[in-house]
Amino acid sequence: MAVVASLTDRKTVQPGIQSLVDLVSGGMDQVNQIILSNAGSNVELIPEIAKHLISSGGKRLRPMLTLACADMFGYQGDGHVTLAASVEFMHTATLLHDDVVDESDMRRGKLAARKLWGNQASVLVGDYLLGQAFKMMVDVGSLEALRILSEASAIIAEGEVMQLGAAKDIATTEAQYLKVIEAKTAALFAAAAEVGPVVAGESSEMKKAARSYGMELGLAFQLVDDALDYGGSSADLGKDVGDDFREGKITLPVVFAIQRGADGDRAFWKRCLETDGIQDGDLEHAIELMTKYDAIADTVERARSYGDSALKALDRLPAGAHQTALAEAVAFCISRVS
Amino acid sequence: MAVVASLTDRKTVQPGIQSLVDLVSGGMDQVNQIILSNAGSNVELIPEIAKHLISSGGKRLRPMLTLACADMFGYQGDGHVTLAASVEFMHTATLLHDDVVDESDMRRGKLAARKLWGNQASVLVGDYLLGQAFKMMVDVGSLEALRILSEASAIIAEGEVMQLGAAKDIATTEAQYLKVIEAKTAALFAAAAEVGPVVAGESSEMKKAARSYGMELGLAFQLVDDALDYGGSSADLGKDVGDDFREGKITLPVVFAIQRGADGDRAFWKRCLETDGIQDGDLEHAIELMTKYDAIADTVERARSYGDSALKALDRLPAGAHQTALAEAVAFCISRVS
Repeated sequence: MAVVASLTDRKTVQPGIQSLVDLVSGGMDQVNQIILSNAGSNVELIPEIAKHLISSGGKRLRPMLTLACADMFGYQGDGHVTLAASVEFMHTATLLHDDVVDESDMRRGKLAARKLWGNQASVLVGDYLLGQAFKMMVDVGSLEALRILSEASAIIAEGEVMQLGAAKDIATTEAQYLKVIEAKTAALFAAAAEVGPVVAGESSEMKKAARSYGMELGLAFQLVDDALDYGGSSADLGKDVGDDFREGKITLPVVFAIQRGADGDRAFWKRCLETDGIQDGDLEHAIELMTKYDAIADTVERARSYGDSALKALDRLPAGAHQTALAEAVAFCISRVS
Repeated sequence: MAVVASLTDRKTVQPGIQSLVDLVSGGMDQVNQIILSNAGSNVELIPEIAKHLISSGGKRLRPMLTLACADMFGYQGDGHVTLAASVEFMHTATLLHDDVVDESDMRRGKLAARKLWGNQASVLVGDYLLGQAFKMMVDVGSLEALRILSEASAIIAEGEVMQLGAAKDIATTEAQYLKVIEAKTAALFAAAAEVGPVVAGESSEMKKAARSYGMELGLAFQLVDDALDYGGSSADLGKDVGDDFREGKITLPVVFAIQRGADGDRAFWKRCLETDGIQDGDLEHAIELMTKYDAIADTVERARSYGDSALKALDRLPAGAHQTALAEAVAFCISRVS
């Protein structure tokens, strides 16, 4: 099968998000309209905060997955558009709550909502968006899609609580960390992709394939993010580098560096990540240690490996323009760091 | 109609919650089992916090409404039990987030979860319970019940955001305040009652009657709470009095006292509620002013009036033991303050 070969041989897949953006652009216009009309409320603060977050960009990868994974089956209804908007609302609600939990000051290069409107409003507007997300899903009328997305909602929160427990614990293992990101990031990618064939009325094989694609892509996406937070493969100290480190988050680059490091390094990691004692020069030293032990490069390698699994899952989905675009999106996610 | 007369003449309805408790005790045992099994998670912190909240009591009025409003139609399935547990999860999630937003130290006489486990865990475990609530609702398979409860979920959050905007604004009117409590409290009572006839497959007249009963009861319940926070009709300064005042919450007793007060009082309310300047003796003075202007008594009178409307809605529901018990529950809610 030529298609299988061309997709799974990653060298032949051109990285890029543009094909996907073009293919689903009509649907995304509708998604944006639904988002804006459902973020509306007579309570001023709600549309204000929602629009701040929604207009501040982001690639909208998750709703595009939902659209593409329905469109690839020739789905003609508009349920996928509403579900895609719900997925983006769920994601936005998570961002609002995450910023409160992480005490973040910035989000996508802008002041975080909690810095502009306070933690209280961020918690409550997050709750509102989550409620709206469920309302919108109910409108679609697919109990199966509702089950998938509500399950994802509980799992995301579970993953965040797990991460809270794992934060500041330098004994965290790779397996524990993967469990966290599978829940807090990949579960929503998986659900976003799976509801495509669900709303299109496809077979359980197609649903499973779409879910696997989303899950593996989500893992790859998060690991790339983790690597980028330490400057990526080139360990460039650009802006937005070191947020995870400052928040005491144990991510895969840290897990690798600690596991492979000398006993003497342990005290350094312990001071930085467990006891909140980050000083000038600590981030640079952390990246030095990571470079020495290939911690960032191997995180990227893991991401590549999950990307390959995503491509394999994609092979089980229908060939065509959408399949190709979804493959390019995987390569794009990885290429952000290479 | 004798039934109408006996219910709407409030003097003949004995206040009490015991008949309701007895009638739904079998269902509530199942609700408690569902709650405990769905508050479980491999992530330790989740069942720990959930059990703390769930075991700390509360009357469980909302899930009892769901059970009674299904049982009164002779409903034989178990969907009402799952929906009742979902309602309680939604309520518990709201409590967790409220305590974070209000910076409360205590909840039902115990330390608030956020004081024991931190704001971060409270936000995330609230999200988890909300996700679980939707999962459980999906299991019941009624899109109509899902629509009602997801709508309530968005409305509750909207009400909380509204309250955040109204907090510390002494120009808040009675109408504005009623809008807040209709959303933040009464909407869940209304939804809890309405899903009873929904799951029992009843007519839209029955659904509307149950919804009205829940809505009016919820308003009465909240107004009684507001009055109790200033010592109730007797203006007793028992424990747990003055929480709203300390948090700068504008409730109906405050609205009445400000509207009816002398111009000179305005500065007092402004200092206490808008500029956070509460000093020793302020609560006592506030209660004095409220007593002078009948602010607490008239809040209770409003509660009674909503209670009467709840009884009228109840008249449209089937006569029998459940109807009587639900009437007694209304009288009970009011009697807490008399």
